[in-house]
Amino acid sequence: MTEHPKFAVFGGGSWATAIVKMLCENLDEVGWYMRSTYAMEHIKKEDHNPNYLSSVEFKVSQLKLSNDINEMIEYADYLIFVIPSAFVEAELKKVTVSLEDKIVFSAIKGIVPESSLIVGDHFNTHYNVAFNNIGVISGPCHAEEVALERLSYLTIACADEEKAKLVADKLSSDYIKCTTSDDVMGTEYAAMLKNIYAIAAGIAHGLGYGDNFQSVLMSNAIREMKKYVKRVHKMKRNINDSAYLGDLLVTGYSVFSRNRMFGNMIGKGYTVKSAQMEMNMIAEGYYATKSAYNLNQAKGKKKAKTPIINAVYAILYEGKDPKKVFTKLTDKLD
Amino acid sequence: MTEHPKFAVFGGGSWATAIVKMLCENLDEVGWYMRSTYAMEHIKKEDHNPNYLSSVEFKVSQLKLSNDINEMIEYADYLIFVIPSAFVEAELKKVTVSLEDKIVFSAIKGIVPESSLIVGDHFNTHYNVAFNNIGVISGPCHAEEVALERLSYLTIACADEEKAKLVADKLSSDYIKCTTSDDVMGTEYAAMLKNIYAIAAGIAHGLGYGDNFQSVLMSNAIREMKKYVKRVHKMKRNINDSAYLGDLLVTGYSVFSRNRMFGNMIGKGYTVKSAQMEMNMIAEGYYATKSAYNLNQAKGKKKAKTPIINAVYAILYEGKDPKKVFTKLTDKLD
Repeated sequence: MTEHPKFAVFGGGSWATAIVKMLCENLDEVGWYMRSTYAMEHIKKEDHNPNYLSSVEFKVSQLKLSNDINEMIEYADYLIFVIPSAFVEAELKKVTVSLEDKIVFSAIKGIVPESSLIVGDHFNTHYNVAFNNIGVISGPCHAEEVALERLSYLTIACADEEKAKLVADKLSSDYIKCTTSDDVMGTEYAAMLKNIYAIAAGIAHGLGYGDNFQSVLMSNAIREMKKYVKRVHKMKRNINDSAYLGDLLVTGYSVFSRNRMFGNMIGKGYTVKSAQMEMNMIAEGYYATKSAYNLNQAKGKKKAKTPIINAVYAILYEGKDPKKVFTKLTDKLD
Repeated sequence: MTEHPKFAVFGGGSWATAIVKMLCENLDEVGWYMRSTYAMEHIKKEDHNPNYLSSVEFKVSQLKLSNDINEMIEYADYLIFVIPSAFVEAELKKVTVSLEDKIVFSAIKGIVPESSLIVGDHFNTHYNVAFNNIGVISGPCHAEEVALERLSYLTIACADEEKAKLVADKLSSDYIKCTTSDDVMGTEYAAMLKNIYAIAAGIAHGLGYGDNFQSVLMSNAIREMKKYVKRVHKMKRNINDSAYLGDLLVTGYSVFSRNRMFGNMIGKGYTVKSAQMEMNMIAEGYYATKSAYNLNQAKGKKKAKTPIINAVYAILYEGKDPKKVFTKLTDKLD
């Protein structure tokens, strides 16, 4: 590793754009891969991403932009992946260079559908990245507020504490504070699960449940998340830390949450397809619901009790009536 | 105790009105004491409380209204007190009859200023009510949503499980679900503390902090609450249960929260006095801040680390600048 390791962000969405912005506060050069040539050329000419967080002005001389994923992987030491989980494998299929000596951080929430693995495991299993070289960047953090430079906290998790600290250092600024953690698995699963609970919160809102119920739902969700994550990776963690509870709350309560919005439409009677078309955006929690549900069911008798995930699954994937499912769910909460 | 114990609610505010409404779903007669003759007469004539939750229509024949506190105490077996903590002692000073054989449930959030005791302790110490006859009714529950009959959950805590169950039974309905608990002290302290955190959330909002920060603040608040309550009364409890975390969230996030609104005004630059005048309502958290802070300080070396409570205290009682206090606070959160 060089004394000044190079960083590259992979992805062109709002969260990718926010992370590039954070890195630009600290690094002379930031690599940025995106699929869209149009967006890339637009950034070069107009100094901002045309599609996401367009209020953020970049100093283009600071950016090393490319739409060649192999070139960008060769360029960087630290690769930060911020591609929706449903599309990450399609991007990785283009990779011909080795990832073995790279340090891979994931800011992706979700499970890779092709492998049914969380992103860290996917890189380890299919791209020979050592677990010591795998990390996670987690919120609670809406990209939109990074654009506004509103104070936000991130959790940087990596089994190798030095790497977590280095990434934390490069992301920190006046408006970003970072905490480090060694709970890569727990952080990643929590980040995925919270999107499901945000959909549940949205459905509840769409069905007309109020703030009182919402708080009960979140209180049950964090207990459910604790059980789920414990089954997946047992270690000492405080589920009320920002990376778990904070991340759940920002997604469950925020007006910026795409997952909550998606759920809200479902609660109001939209079909899954019409809600997705109307939003013109992917609610990660939609995929996460299927993955998390199946992963849990596969554990047979050892599965965690997850009434909320099960309810969202029944609505999104079994065509069950939201109102009926939630009426039953309310009896399982306390 | 008779086979059909009599219930009376003491207080004329919105939460008292909501609890009377809940009891009216199950009981033939509900006692209701309030100080204001005007409000009482208005209810008798117009079927609703003129000052709070005026959309709620009562069947007046079901109500036993009185503004004589002694008459009402003599009438009832179960006394539910819903008077703001700052005024409860002034009301109790009027009492000439014995409370010794009464079962006293408190739906008051806060510490009685005259005794620096939470309400349960106050009734025990100063009115000889046995701990076995003392209980707490706790949210997460905004009165406004009870008026709208939106599904809400209550926690009914009493050392005597039978009494908790009986009160739970009388409050439950289509839109109210009750859980019972034996953690009277923890529930009461949590209910008090959450108002302080709601003020903190309001201050943060008033100062321009966003949703990302808000979720970090709440994540730190529940950890702080856990430590505080553990110091006060150590027992096995899951701080993420609705009575603790749920109650914190509904108050910290809800548009109905008076405490959050009060904090918001402070954050926007109002003085404490002008905010209180503008609101024309008492934010319980204002008193709770002083009580909780002093109670903790009195523990000397055994005090809990409470950076959030300390920050709110410094702003409300030491005239410190909210912006400066919060800038320092953000370094203590994670």
